[in-house]
Amino acid sequence: MTRSFSHRTLGQRVFFGAGNLTSDVGAERERLAARRVMLIASSSAVAAADQLGDVLPVAHRYDGARQHVPIEDAHAARQIAAEVEADLLVCVGGGSAIGLGKAIALRSRTPLIAVPTTFAGSEATNAWGMTRQGRKTTGVEDAVLPSSVVYDVDLVASLPADLVTSSGMNALAHCLDSLWAPGADPINEVLAVEAMRALSQGLVQFTANPGADPGADHGADADGLQQLQQGAYLAGAAFASAGSGLHHRICHVLGGTYNLPHAQTHAVVLPHVLAFNLEAAPAAGARIAAALGGADALHGLMQLGARVDAPRALKDLGMLERDLEAAAHRIHAVVPPSNPRSMDRRDAARLLRAAWSGDDPAQLRHPL
Amino acid sequence: MTRSFSHRTLGQRVFFGAGNLTSDVGAERERLAARRVMLIASSSAVAAADQLGDVLPVAHRYDGARQHVPIEDAHAARQIAAEVEADLLVCVGGGSAIGLGKAIALRSRTPLIAVPTTFAGSEATNAWGMTRQGRKTTGVEDAVLPSSVVYDVDLVASLPADLVTSSGMNALAHCLDSLWAPGADPINEVLAVEAMRALSQGLVQFTANPGADPGADHGADADGLQQLQQGAYLAGAAFASAGSGLHHRICHVLGGTYNLPHAQTHAVVLPHVLAFNLEAAPAAGARIAAALGGADALHGLMQLGARVDAPRALKDLGMLERDLEAAAHRIHAVVPPSNPRSMDRRDAARLLRAAWSGDDPAQLRHPL
Repeated sequence: MTRSFSHRTLGQRVFFGAGNLTSDVGAERERLAARRVMLIASSSAVAAADQLGDVLPVAHRYDGARQHVPIEDAHAARQIAAEVEADLLVCVGGGSAIGLGKAIALRSRTPLIAVPTTFAGSEATNAWGMTRQGRKTTGVEDAVLPSSVVYDVDLVASLPADLVTSSGMNALAHCLDSLWAPGADPINEVLAVEAMRALSQGLVQFTANPGADPGADHGADADGLQQLQQGAYLAGAAFASAGSGLHHRICHVLGGTYNLPHAQTHAVVLPHVLAFNLEAAPAAGARIAAALGGADALHGLMQLGARVDAPRALKDLGMLERDLEAAAHRIHAVVPPSNPRSMDRRDAARLLRAAWSGDDPAQLRHPL
Repeated sequence: MTRSFSHRTLGQRVFFGAGNLTSDVGAERERLAARRVMLIASSSAVAAADQLGDVLPVAHRYDGARQHVPIEDAHAARQIAAEVEADLLVCVGGGSAIGLGKAIALRSRTPLIAVPTTFAGSEATNAWGMTRQGRKTTGVEDAVLPSSVVYDVDLVASLPADLVTSSGMNALAHCLDSLWAPGADPINEVLAVEAMRALSQGLVQFTANPGADPGADHGADADGLQQLQQGAYLAGAAFASAGSGLHHRICHVLGGTYNLPHAQTHAVVLPHVLAFNLEAAPAAGARIAAALGGADALHGLMQLGARVDAPRALKDLGMLERDLEAAAHRIHAVVPPSNPRSMDRRDAARLLRAAWSGDDPAQLRHPL
């Protein structure tokens, strides 16, 4: 049986290394012949921004980029970029700093170099997002795709251990969900499967390191962290092309309406979505199992979750039992038609209750 | 141990399907808002070009694109494109038609849609080539990268069986060589390994079809052919980024100086290069073995070669024994420094003689 599909690959340069921050960003600045850099940093990336400030022609430095790109911040940053006549944006941080740079580029078409310090993956996508009075607007536009991405493993070596694992699990969610998202195709699948392998290997190596205390220097574990960076990049590329599947639709409802913490919500929900879809997507299940190294996809994911001590119940994250029914309604309304198993309102309620109470996800594999 | 590398991904849209030729090319023409199409076809693709002629605003049709893009053809085609004010090049065929389109785009920057009818992979690269009095000039330039590629499995369904297998084995050579080429990196490797899997599965399915006679309609075997198309695409993308490794350097010497047939030369040489490198590249060997489904990489490749009845000896392709010594000298001079095992002049002579006489490649795994 032949398949019909189309795939779009986004053109980008990406650099990986250790201690390569200033040399790779400097060389890319030169290649782009930029003379007036606007340097944008999240508050956790000030030290890296200092290093860059020493080698770049900085026309303006913007510190403290905030989560979810508040529209006021975007307006202010756009005005600054215009005033200083920035011809290059260099964004250092996680989704916040890169997101603010994208908000500028969306209007000005200024090229952007991303220097990620988490595994969020925004650097590999042409998607942007902004919030106005707590409501998020998102869109897709090629002008916001970073022309270059520079990963320096030294920048993640001082991340707190719990941030490494939650950000890594968040990246893993991009991969699994890509397999049944509306734009799923065989090329995304290749990227997603390799990303899963790298992320799970990176998480295993990271947690196996006895020195992995919060805030400690994980120099000895640089290989695991670099696996996480490579996995995060490929996960972002797969997700950019595949779009949001069932898992991200559910987490979007939970995060948006009930204000649950992003990465932790993903970690709780993911095994339940996998269990729900597994019997209807045996090929995806086999590839997930192979990538995670489990006897079975769900087993592999649960094992990894246990190893990184991922949270297991939405009730522990502050979700109230009385909100379950309304949330299930909302979730049922946004199930993508591409999902391999159809989900009626009762299925949605059952999945949500299992995730809320922390029940064994395996019960969701088959209808009641 | 961390790794330092950079990878460049070329941005492109790609379409796969059956019977999708006119709809996908038509939609891309519309997206690009082109009104004056120069339609370029190789002589084997006249029927497909006729179909496209019915749906595209053709300002000029150029039939009979020739192999290796003779410079006179490039000059003539560029002049025509300028005269008819072509705003889009649509190239249907193998490397010849796509190569001629690239020669035009190199100067005019006209966008190009490629419709491949072989597994050569040129459509996935920003490399161009032209020949002047039999000498080939090549280069790399983003303007020649097709903006879109449309694969229609119906277009390869009538390929002669021996062309399917030789073109498929040629694509497989792109993958293996990518693993140790100068620009080899973990992202190319992902693409190359998946391409190997798809190509070998496609070749196995194709040759398992008892109806696979030269010139026959391989409708029942469309899935295998589509695997070959997907594999060819990913192989081209990996090779574009990784560059020529030892295998392609050797074949370039043999093809250029001794005028041996391209695809067949690749099929003979590949197992010998793999055997030579195997012990020095155990990780690559494991991934090749997994992709080809053999107990061992060399075993898997030899099994596939036997299945598609690949030629085994350069002497059968017309190479003369008296040319071996000079050829070995030439080969020794072009061994890439990136090759996992160093190759002295004696190694080069030994490899070449084994390939010439059709000896078991396994003898090359270890030094004498």
